[in-house]
Amino acid sequence: MLPIAKSLKQGKRGILERLDSGEVVIGDGGFVFALEKRGYVKAGPWTPEATVEHPEAVRQLHREFLRAGSNVLQTFTFYASEDKLENRGNYVAEKITCQKVNEAACDIAKEVATEGDALVAGGVSQTPSYLSCKDKAEVKAVFRKQLEVFMKKNVDFLIAEYFEHVEEAVWAVEVLKESGKPVAATMCIGPEGDMHGVPPGQCAVQLVKAGASIVGVNCHFDAETCLQTVKLMKEGLQAAKLKAHLMSQPLAFHTPDCGKQGFIDLPEFPFALEPRIVSRWDVQKYARKAYDLGIRYIGGCCGFEPYHIRAIAEELAPERGFLPEASEKHGSWGNSLSMHTKPWVRARARKEYWENLKPASGRPYCPSMSKPDGWGVTKGAKELMQQKEATTEQQLKELFQKQKF
Amino acid sequence: MLPIAKSLKQGKRGILERLDSGEVVIGDGGFVFALEKRGYVKAGPWTPEATVEHPEAVRQLHREFLRAGSNVLQTFTFYASEDKLENRGNYVAEKITCQKVNEAACDIAKEVATEGDALVAGGVSQTPSYLSCKDKAEVKAVFRKQLEVFMKKNVDFLIAEYFEHVEEAVWAVEVLKESGKPVAATMCIGPEGDMHGVPPGQCAVQLVKAGASIVGVNCHFDAETCLQTVKLMKEGLQAAKLKAHLMSQPLAFHTPDCGKQGFIDLPEFPFALEPRIVSRWDVQKYARKAYDLGIRYIGGCCGFEPYHIRAIAEELAPERGFLPEASEKHGSWGNSLSMHTKPWVRARARKEYWENLKPASGRPYCPSMSKPDGWGVTKGAKELMQQKEATTEQQLKELFQKQKF
Amino acid sequence: MLPIAKSLKQGKRGILERLDSGEVVIGDGGFVFALEKRGYVKAGPWTPEATVEHPEAVRQLHREFLRAGSNVLQTFTFYASEDKLENRGNYVAEKITCQKVNEAACDIAKEVATEGDALVAGGVSQTPSYLSCKDKAEVKAVFRKQLEVFMKKNVDFLIAEYFEHVEEAVWAVEVLKESGKPVAATMCIGPEGDMHGVPPGQCAVQLVKAGASIVGVNCHFDAETCLQTVKLMKEGLQAAKLKAHLMSQPLAFHTPDCGKQGFIDLPEFPFALEPRIVSRWDVQKYARKAYDLGIRYIGGCCGFEPYHIRAIAEELAPERGFLPEASEKHGSWGNSLSMHTKPWVRARARKEYWENLKPASGRPYCPSMSKPDGWGVTKGAKELMQQKEATTEQQLKELFQKQKF
Amino acid sequence: MLPIAKSLKQGKRGILERLDSGEVVIGDGGFVFALEKRGYVKAGPWTPEATVEHPEAVRQLHREFLRAGSNVLQTFTFYASEDKLENRGNYVAEKITCQKVNEAACDIAKEVATEGDALVAGGVSQTPSYLSCKDKAEVKAVFRKQLEVFMKKNVDFLIAEYFEHVEEAVWAVEVLKESGKPVAATMCIGPEGDMHGVPPGQCAVQLVKAGASIVGVNCHFDAETCLQTVKLMKEGLQAAKLKAHLMSQPLAFHTPDCGKQGFIDLPEFPFALEPRIVSRWDVQKYARKAYDLGIRYIGGCCGFEPYHIRAIAEELAPERGFLPEASEKHGSWGNSLSMHTKPWVRARARKEYWENLKPASGRPYCPSMSKPDGWGVTKGAKELMQQKEATTEQQLKELFQKQKF
Repeated sequence: MLPIAKSLKQGKRGILERLDSGEVVIGDGGFVFALEKRGYVKAGPWTPEATVEHPEAVRQLHREFLRAGSNVLQTFTFYASEDKLENRGNYVAEKITCQKVNEAACDIAKEVATEGDALVAGGVSQTPSYLSCKDKAEVKAVFRKQLEVFMKKNVDFLIAEYFEHVEEAVWAVEVLKESGKPVAATMCIGPEGDMHGVPPGQCAVQLVKAGASIVGVNCHFDAETCLQTVKLMKEGLQAAKLKAHLMSQPLAFHTPDCGKQGFIDLPEFPFALEPRIVSRWDVQKYARKAYDLGIRYIGGCCGFEPYHIRAIAEELAPERGFLPEASEKHGSWGNSLSMHTKPWVRARARKEYWENLKPASGRPYCPSMSKPDGWGVTKGAKELMQQKEATTEQQLKELFQKQKF
Repeated sequence: MLPIAKSLKQGKRGILERLDSGEVVIGDGGFVFALEKRGYVKAGPWTPEATVEHPEAVRQLHREFLRAGSNVLQTFTFYASEDKLENRGNYVAEKITCQKVNEAACDIAKEVATEGDALVAGGVSQTPSYLSCKDKAEVKAVFRKQLEVFMKKNVDFLIAEYFEHVEEAVWAVEVLKESGKPVAATMCIGPEGDMHGVPPGQCAVQLVKAGASIVGVNCHFDAETCLQTVKLMKEGLQAAKLKAHLMSQPLAFHTPDCGKQGFIDLPEFPFALEPRIVSRWDVQKYARKAYDLGIRYIGGCCGFEPYHIRAIAEELAPERGFLPEASEKHGSWGNSLSMHTKPWVRARARKEYWENLKPASGRPYCPSMSKPDGWGVTKGAKELMQQKEATTEQQLKELFQKQKF
Repeated sequence: MLPIAKSLKQGKRGILERLDSGEVVIGDGGFVFALEKRGYVKAGPWTPEATVEHPEAVRQLHREFLRAGSNVLQTFTFYASEDKLENRGNYVAEKITCQKVNEAACDIAKEVATEGDALVAGGVSQTPSYLSCKDKAEVKAVFRKQLEVFMKKNVDFLIAEYFEHVEEAVWAVEVLKESGKPVAATMCIGPEGDMHGVPPGQCAVQLVKAGASIVGVNCHFDAETCLQTVKLMKEGLQAAKLKAHLMSQPLAFHTPDCGKQGFIDLPEFPFALEPRIVSRWDVQKYARKAYDLGIRYIGGCCGFEPYHIRAIAEELAPERGFLPEASEKHGSWGNSLSMHTKPWVRARARKEYWENLKPASGRPYCPSMSKPDGWGVTKGAKELMQQKEATTEQQLKELFQKQKF
Repeated sequence: MLPIAKSLKQGKRGILERLDSGEVVIGDGGFVFALEKRGYVKAGPWTPEATVEHPEAVRQLHREFLRAGSNVLQTFTFYASEDKLENRGNYVAEKITCQKVNEAACDIAKEVATEGDALVAGGVSQTPSYLSCKDKAEVKAVFRKQLEVFMKKNVDFLIAEYFEHVEEAVWAVEVLKESGKPVAATMCIGPEGDMHGVPPGQCAVQLVKAGASIVGVNCHFDAETCLQTVKLMKEGLQAAKLKAHLMSQPLAFHTPDCGKQGFIDLPEFPFALEPRIVSRWDVQKYARKAYDLGIRYIGGCCGFEPYHIRAIAEELAPERGFLPEASEKHGSWGNSLSMHTKPWVRARARKEYWENLKPASGRPYCPSMSKPDGWGVTKGAKELMQQKEATTEQQLKELFQKQKF
C-alpha cells in the first residue's frame, strides 16, 4: 500500500512550479452546495457571508478538503463581488461588507493552508454588473476591489471562475494579471460554447492571450461533459499554438440531460438533485479520464464533498506516490469491507464490483432523465416576450442574461 | 412568517417533560455516514474514534444539527462498546481506549448543547458480545461500562439504539435503567420483526416492560418502512394497554427494495447509495406522516445531513411555532428562488412544485430497484453451509449473526 | 434437438384425459388485445363481433396459436353474453346478434382445431346482469343462452373465465355443468381475493364444489402475481381435501405496481401498456414456475401473442418431448443468431444471455412503476360520493361494481 | 367526426400523381417482425419464404395494414434476392426458389390491394453480393432478377430500401429505373450517414441523381432519429437544388441509445425489444412531426403493427378528410373509454391524458437505456482483429461489412 502522507511542505512551491514539473494538483470541492446542506449558505443568492457569520464552519470544510487531498484551498469568495452582495436582501446584516467577507475568506483559507501542503487561491466569478450591461471599466473596477483584498492578504495565485461569457472572463483575467501572480480561468460552459456562442476552443485562446496560465471549465455540467469541453479547449489551444495548463472542476451530479445552460435549467435544480449525486467510484473514473486527457489541475465544483476529492487523490495515488490523510479512514476500492460477517458484503471488497455496479435509485416512480426547462416551454417567458417585443427567443434570452442574476 | 428562534433555554426541561407535554422533539442525524463523507470515520468498522482524533469535526457536526433544529444531541458513541472497539484492527492508535472515546463524546456533545436548547443523550448499540453468544451477564457488563461514563458525565437521558434482537435490547434497557434516567429504545428492524422473528408489536411491549419510556425504530430502512414498523409497535402497545412515547430515526435513503435485514444487503451498500439519498421534500413528507401517526420524537439516522433535520423542523414549524436557526439560510418550500432571473426557475419557488416533482437520477443506464444480496444467492454462503452442516438457511443465518459483526 | 411435431391427432383425447394423465395442456393467448391491435376489436367494449364481421381475422389468429403450440382453442366469445352485446352502442350492425356471434365463434374455432391436435372450449365471462344486481335466475339465464350454442356446436369442454366475484363464477359453473361436459373456471383476481373479499383458497373450494374440474386465474395481473394466487388456491383446495387441476392464464404485461383490481387501474391501461409487454424469455420463466407449482393447464390472456405461447411450448418441450410447429421459425434461446456476421450479435445466441438480460425501455423520461388510479385519488369519484351519499369509499366502489360494466 | 372511408378507388392514381398533388401517402408496417411474432419468419435470416409456405398469413397482414389506412402494400420481398435466400440454411424446402417467393409476394399484395385504394410496390433491399465485394455488374444482376418478377406482375412502383451503403442503393435505383416505373429509395442510416461515412444530404443527392423520385430512410432507428436524418436529406437536396418527395419508415421502438449502426447493436436486439415498443400516441406525434417537416410518404418499419399505421391515419385525418376503416374499432384519443364504469378510467378518454402520460415499464430492475454492443467492447472482435491484421477498428468494421450479412 502507498504511504498515507500529510502532503509534505517542501518549501512551498507555487502553482506553476508544480504544474510545470508535471505534478497533479488536486483542487477542492463545492463550498456553496456543501455549506447550504450544513445550514450556512442560502440557495438562490448563494453568497459567502458565512466567512464572517460562521468562520468555524468554513474553516472546518477547508480542513476536510485539505485532509482529503486538496492542494489548493480556494478562498470562499464566490459571488463575493460588491455588486452581487448588495443584491442579497435583508437576510444578511448590514455590517457584513464586501471587504469583510473577502478578508475573512482569505484569513480562514490561509490559516488552514498552513496545516498542510496547500496553496491559497483568491477567486472571482461573474458579476451582476456585466450581466446588466455595465461597461468594461465598471466591471473591471468590481474585480479590482476583490483583487485588492487578495493582494493585501497575499494569496498564492488567482482564479477567475464561473463565467458564462468569455468577454467578461477576459476582463477578469486582465485585472487579475495586474497583480503579477499566476492566473487560472475556468468557464461554466459546455461543448456548445459561451452564452454568446463563442466555442470552447476560442474561449481558451482568448483567456490565454489575456494572461491565464491555466484554463478549463468548472460547474454547470457533469464530469463527462466538462471533459468534452476541456478537450475542445485543448484542441483550440493546439491549433493556435498556445500553451497552457488544463483544469477541470465539474459538478458532482450526473447531468446527461442538460441543455446549453447546464444544470440550472434542470427541473431538479437546486433542491432535488440528490438522485444525481455521483459516487466515489464515478469520481475515480473522472479523475482517470481527466488525467488521460492531459489535465493536471483536477478538482470539483457544486456537489463535491470531501470524500469525492479523496477519490481523485486515491485514483491518482499510483502516479503521485502517496495517499491523502483522509485515506486513513478509507479502504481503497471498498477493501474495508473485507472483514464483514456476511459473505455477500465481503464480496463487495473489490474494485471490479464497484466499477461495474449500476446503482439503483430506489425511486421506481421517478424517471432517469428530465427535460430541461427553458425558453419556449415557459408560459411566463412567452408573455414577457410579447411585452418586451423581443422578436426571437434568443434575443429574450440575452435580454434576461443582461439583467442582474 | 414564523420567527426564527434559537430554541430558547427555558430552564432546561427534560426529555419526558417535553414529550409528556405534547411537544415535538427533533432528533439529530447520522454521524457515522456524515463523518465518513467528511473523512473521519471508516466504513466497515464504523467506529467513533474521531471523538478523540478529531474532536473539532465531531463538534462542528453537532453544531450543524443543533442549528438545524435538533433538540437532542446524541453522544457520538455508536459502536463504542469495548468489545467492538477491540475489533477495529490497527488503523486506530492503541492509546485511544473505549473510555476515552466515550468521555470525549460526552464532552463534545455537552459543550455544544449549551449553545442551544438541546438535551444530551448517551447512546449504546448492539454488541459483538451478544452476537457471539456471550451470556446475559457478560453482555450487560459491556453496556454498564459505557453507562458509567454517561453517569460520570451526567448526560440528560439514555438511548439504546440499533438492535436487531429484542433480547439484547431488553438487556441494554435494563442496564440503562439502573441509572434512574429516562431511557429510549429503538430497534433497526422492519415490519417483519427482529432477527429471531419477534414481531414489532411484541418488541415494543418487551422494551416498555423493561423500562423504556420511549420506543421506536432507527436505521436499516427508509422512512416509509420505519413508519410502518412504528405503527405495528404502537398497535402492540395499545393491545397490551401499555403507554410509551414513539420515536423514529430512519435512513435518508429510499429503500423500497430491501429485504428483512435492511439496506446492508442492498448491492449499493455502503459506497453507492447516492442515487437513493432523500431530498428535503421527502423528509418533510416523512415528518408530517410521523407526526400524524402520533410520533413525537422525530429524527434521522444514516444519511441524514443537517439540511434533512432542518426539513423536519420546517415541516413542523406551524405546530411548534418557530423555525430553527438554520432557516435563516433557507426559504420555505423553495421561496428563495422567487427572485431568480429566469422565469422557469422562479416558477420553482412554491410548495406544489417540489411536492410533486419526480426527480430524475441522470443515470439512464441504472435500474430503479435492486435485488438484495443474501442467503440463497451467494455461492460463498452455500459453501459455508455445507462446511458447517447447517441444514437450513435460517440456521446458517443465525449462526452468522451470533458471530462478531 | 427435439422433433418439431404438428401435435398428433391421437384419436382426440379430452381435456380431463390429458390432464389426468399428467400431460401439460397449453392454452391460447389474448384475443381481444391481439385483435384490437390488428384493427378488429374496440377497446372499451372489448366485444367479439369480429367473429361475424371478419371471420378471416379470427381464424388466422386461432391458426397462429395452434401453430405456436396451443392445445385448446377458446371460442372467441369473451363478453359475448346478450346483455353485454346490447351495451355496445351503434358501432356494430343491428343484425349481428348474440347468437350469431357465438355460433360463428364456435364454427371458426372448430374449423381450425381440425388442423391440429386442439380441443375447442366454449367460454363465458362475467356479465353486466350480475354487476347490476340481477338475481341468480336471471344471471344464469344469460349464461344458459351461450351454453345452448356451445351444446349445439358440440364444443369439447367449457370455461368460465374472467370473474371478479366468486358468487357469479359459481353460478356460471353450475350452468355449464348442466351440459355434462368438463368445466374449467378461472377468476381475474389477485392474492387479496375477489371483489367481495373472498380469499383465493376459498374461491377455489367453492368453484370445485360447484363442479369445476379445473380452477385457476386469468387476466388482470402479471405471471408472478397470478402464480401467487394459484398457489393460494392450491393450498385452499389441499386444506379442504379437494382435488382439481390447476390453470393459469396471466397477462403478458409486467404489473408489479397493480392494486387489488389489477391492470385496469394502472394509468397506462389500455393504450400505453407497450413498455410492460413481456418478452419470450419472461414467458419461459413463467412456464417453468407454473410447471414447478403443479399447474398443468398453462396459457395466457391479454397481451399474449402467438410467440408468447410458443415460448411456453419451447420451455416445456423437454417434458413434452416435442416442439410446436412454429418452432420451425425459431431457434431455441436465440440460437438463430449464431450465424450473424457481427461477433457481438453472435454472442447473443445462448440461453444465459437472454435469461440475464435486463432489457432497457429506451424511455429515459418515463418511470418504471406507476401509482394505480382509484378511489380516493379521483375528484370525480369524490363528487359522486357526495351525490350518492355513499358514506364510505368501499360502499361507493361496490355501488359502481353493481352497475353495468 | 370525420367519415370512416374505405379509401375510394378513384380510378387508380399512381404514387407520383398522389404525391405531386400534395396528398399524404401512408405506408405499411414491418412484415418480418410482425410475422416473426406470428410464427412465420425466422429471426436471424429474416427471409420471406412465408409467401410460399403460408400465404394466408401474409395475406392477412396485408389486409390489416390496408384496413389500418395503408395506401401502399409493399410486396413481402425483403431479403428475397437470390444470393440472400441461398444463405438461409436448411430450414426452408429446396423447392422454394427465389422466383417463387417473389412471385407469390406480388400475387398476394395485388390480390389484397384490389380490396381498397392501395398501390403495390415491389421492393428490393441490400444484398450479400455487395457486402462480399462483388462488382457492380454482379450486384445489379441480382436486383435485375427481382425486377423481372415485378415487371411480369406489373407492380405499380418500386422501392429500394434498407441500404447501409449509398453506393449499393444507387446501383439498385439504376436497375429499378430501367423499368420506367417510379422509384423510391430509403436507406437505413442515421444522421451520421452511411457506413462509408457519406452524410445523409449527399446520399439523398446521389439517389435522386440516380433516378429516385422519392427518398428517405427506413428501419434501424426510432422516429425521432429518422426524422433528423430525413431533415438532413432535405437540406442536402435543397442545397443541390434538386427536387424529390420525402419518405420515412422508422422503427416502432424507442432507440435514443443507438450507435451509428442502429438497433442491431443494442443488447435487446432482436428478442427483448418489448419495453421499447412505441404506443399509438408516440406514432401520432411522429406522424405530425413528419408531416410538419414536409414528408408526405409516411409509414413504418420493424415493430409497426396495424394499429400503429392506423395512428398515422388518425393523426392526419383532419388533413386528409377521412379516417381509415379500422377506425370503426377505435375511438380517437381514447374516447372509447368515455362510457367506462370507473371514473378514473373515463378520465382517460381524452387527448391531453394520453399525450402527456409517461408510461411505466413495470420493470424496476431494468435500466432505461443500454450501451450498444460493438467494436472495442467485444473480446471476440479484438481477437479477430489480431488474426486479420486489421490495424484499426474501422478497417475491421468495414472488413466485416463487406462479408455476407
